[in-house]
Amino acid sequence: MTEAIERVFDHIDAHLEAHVAACQRLIRQPSISPQNVGVRECAEMLRNALLKLGCQHAALAETPGQPVVYGELWQDAPKTLLIYGMYDTQPVDDLAGWSLPPLEARLVEKPPWGRCIVARGSVNSKAPLQGFLNAVASIRAVEGKLPVNLLFVLEGEEELSSRHLPYFIDRYQEKLRRADAVLFPFALQDADGKALIWPGTKGILYFELECSGARWGRGPKAYDVHSSWKVILDSPAWRLTHALSTMTTPDGNTVTIDGFYDNVRPPREDEVALARQLAATWNPEAYTKLWQVDRFVDHESVEALVRRYYYEPTLNIDGIWSGYTGEGSKTVLPHKITAKLDCRLVPDQTPEEIEGKIRAHLDRRGYEDIELRRIGRGMWSQTGFDEPIVQAAMRAYRRLGVEPELQPRNVGFFPAYLFNGPPLRLPMVVAGLGHGGRPHSPDEYFVIDGGDGVAGLAGCEKSHAATLYEYADLTR
Amino acid sequence: MTEAIERVFDHIDAHLEAHVAACQRLIRQPSISPQNVGVRECAEMLRNALLKLGCQHAALAETPGQPVVYGELWQDAPKTLLIYGMYDTQPVDDLAGWSLPPLEARLVEKPPWGRCIVARGSVNSKAPLQGFLNAVASIRAVEGKLPVNLLFVLEGEEELSSRHLPYFIDRYQEKLRRADAVLFPFALQDADGKALIWPGTKGILYFELECSGARWGRGPKAYDVHSSWKVILDSPAWRLTHALSTMTTPDGNTVTIDGFYDNVRPPREDEVALARQLAATWNPEAYTKLWQVDRFVDHESVEALVRRYYYEPTLNIDGIWSGYTGEGSKTVLPHKITAKLDCRLVPDQTPEEIEGKIRAHLDRRGYEDIELRRIGRGMWSQTGFDEPIVQAAMRAYRRLGVEPELQPRNVGFFPAYLFNGPPLRLPMVVAGLGHGGRPHSPDEYFVIDGGDGVAGLAGCEKSHAATLYEYADLTR
Repeated sequence: MTEAIERVFDHIDAHLEAHVAACQRLIRQPSISPQNVGVRECAEMLRNALLKLGCQHAALAETPGQPVVYGELWQDAPKTLLIYGMYDTQPVDDLAGWSLPPLEARLVEKPPWGRCIVARGSVNSKAPLQGFLNAVASIRAVEGKLPVNLLFVLEGEEELSSRHLPYFIDRYQEKLRRADAVLFPFALQDADGKALIWPGTKGILYFELECSGARWGRGPKAYDVHSSWKVILDSPAWRLTHALSTMTTPDGNTVTIDGFYDNVRPPREDEVALARQLAATWNPEAYTKLWQVDRFVDHESVEALVRRYYYEPTLNIDGIWSGYTGEGSKTVLPHKITAKLDCRLVPDQTPEEIEGKIRAHLDRRGYEDIELRRIGRGMWSQTGFDEPIVQAAMRAYRRLGVEPELQPRNVGFFPAYLFNGPPLRLPMVVAGLGHGGRPHSPDEYFVIDGGDGVAGLAGCEKSHAATLYEYADLTR
Repeated sequence: MTEAIERVFDHIDAHLEAHVAACQRLIRQPSISPQNVGVRECAEMLRNALLKLGCQHAALAETPGQPVVYGELWQDAPKTLLIYGMYDTQPVDDLAGWSLPPLEARLVEKPPWGRCIVARGSVNSKAPLQGFLNAVASIRAVEGKLPVNLLFVLEGEEELSSRHLPYFIDRYQEKLRRADAVLFPFALQDADGKALIWPGTKGILYFELECSGARWGRGPKAYDVHSSWKVILDSPAWRLTHALSTMTTPDGNTVTIDGFYDNVRPPREDEVALARQLAATWNPEAYTKLWQVDRFVDHESVEALVRRYYYEPTLNIDGIWSGYTGEGSKTVLPHKITAKLDCRLVPDQTPEEIEGKIRAHLDRRGYEDIELRRIGRGMWSQTGFDEPIVQAAMRAYRRLGVEPELQPRNVGFFPAYLFNGPPLRLPMVVAGLGHGGRPHSPDEYFVIDGGDGVAGLAGCEKSHAATLYEYADLTR
């Protein structure tokens, strides 16, 4: 096996520039699901890529939203991995913050990492996805056959909280049941080169709150009126401001929605121990540099902060808007105000429970008129650390000379619970070397060459290839 | 005098369509001062109009902002009126709300008023301004000479709180001192035909509050980061939400900024009496229809509501924005949040005092980092009811068969204090028949034909012409 892996690694190194170009092509095809820009075109591109890889079957599986790209690559292997991937991206509405056009996938020197692709969708998640496809192509070129069968499930609504993935899984469950485990191939090194593995994720509830004169029956109902009339007219904007202020402590860091923490399961002893172990190597500077922050929320110790990081839920304001937001002074009393918020949830909270609690919290305070519109929701998930797919990823890292850091869970969200839960009940892991940053932000990037302990695209692809071999070996 | 007035009235009636076309031309020239669109071009258009009226002198008086159009029309008359006008308008960023293109000045039938111009800047304030110029042209055509000399001061920054009008007055004070009073010719009938006269105005403070990670030293400093990191990062958006919530009672209708009401002079006995008198004819439906509201802030009686209307200050949220405001779910922790607010001030509050109190209120609560950016400010003003310019306007209304309603003050703002105060110390009134609505809102309109007790453009122009004659007569 080791010799096969070495031959694949050599092939990846020898064809790196072609692999980079393939990443750039995929990134240049917009696929902005929140605004429905280019998503289907990108799906078609991936379907063709799967056929070119040798998939016996590759098609767009239609849903009421964006299609899932579904493919089957049978290799007469005893085991089958379901490869989950996402091909949609966040918007590029934040143009002012970009130093480069966000969809040109330009290569830029970023010391100490050499060339990086700076583009929307680069690290989240097109370069890791194309990197996996490149790795499979290299195995096929050198060895002919893969050590495992693959089922591809590439969704175009990850940024919409995977709203139609359950629809797809429901209809494709007979096919998907043939899988033994799920791999989400990614690039999980941080800026210091620390190499993560995620066998789980927090849950999410994304929603809007809107206060309007029309629903309230007070203040202007139909349009923004002259602000002098505030003197005898009620203001939806003040109303939502006060309603929001009941939802957290004044520092914004503890949620005060009635009963919000009731179902938060306190970390088990082994989880506390894992937090302690992770805290020992936790480097605040990697985060302060990456996020451009000076400090974190108040905390007693690094261990307490790390524990908070993995085991605490959140309530965040993602956006808010009302009235006049241009230059200078337009004097209006706005007729409505809208806020976008998200909750990151931990075991044993559920999105349904929290949505109900927010509604009840508002109603109890007389805010029945404030509209709560759910945009998306997803459950947390957890795969056991001893599952072969988790162990295979750890072995693959070590084969490349990198010690893995197994984390309790990802603090963001990906729809692992849809694979963990019924009807599939499959173990799932997110893994892969390589690094990128600023997902959802301007100047999102992905490291191509690598350096200073951070793998480039070649290292990313090698880790994916090795994971397939290690999984086949572990489950032999 | 009456015969001269009648000849002028006939001339206005005979030339109405040309007068309407002149209003449309002025409206079609954009002059959006908050966004600096077309303002200078509009000023040039007015300068030419003044020269055509026979002004011996007409020029753009430069300021650090937009120019003031200054003109002199000497008539060897014993008295001189300063005609204040504004030629700038609000933006048209609210396109979605308009049923017609906002700058085409189209004529639309609006029962029971016949034709109306629907356009940004129609009632606020180009039709009333052009209507005054039309009235002067008719006097000149029929009588040759006006009964008073006129000094024109037409500013292009009224929507920016007249920020450079003091600069102009300072430099032109020798010229302006030749005036005996100030007239702001407007169209002050409400939708029911009630005909107002304003000898004063509330004051204003317009400002922005901004909370940013960069100034706070907490949360993201440079860009919006992934929202999952809220768990260990502070949020500027939550911080400003909580800071704002300290500034009013939960209903948004009483200001809780420390000391905000300290200098509010309780209404004098005659002011209470005037409120009582005005309450007797106050028709809530005129306002609920105009503003599309169901109800007003809680109040004990109509008299209490009317007293509040004229004699109470406000704190209003004009706009607020932060983070992602597009479709769907972009999950970000915003690095800053900005709100626009305005205070409407009454005697004896001053904008300087209130600005200081807001700053102190925030500082006292630990919000020293929240930036307060003043956008504009202006003092309240008051002219005595017995001044000849006030009485002349009342006589002019009655000459047209309309009983005037003298109100204590306008609840909006116009920069009367700059004329009332040093160095000029001139009485000032806003007056004129005619009606328009939805200033600062979509589908702003001005009534051209009139009907059901509301004067059209001809009535508006006649009231302006008559005011000049009545003033000359009263001060003879």
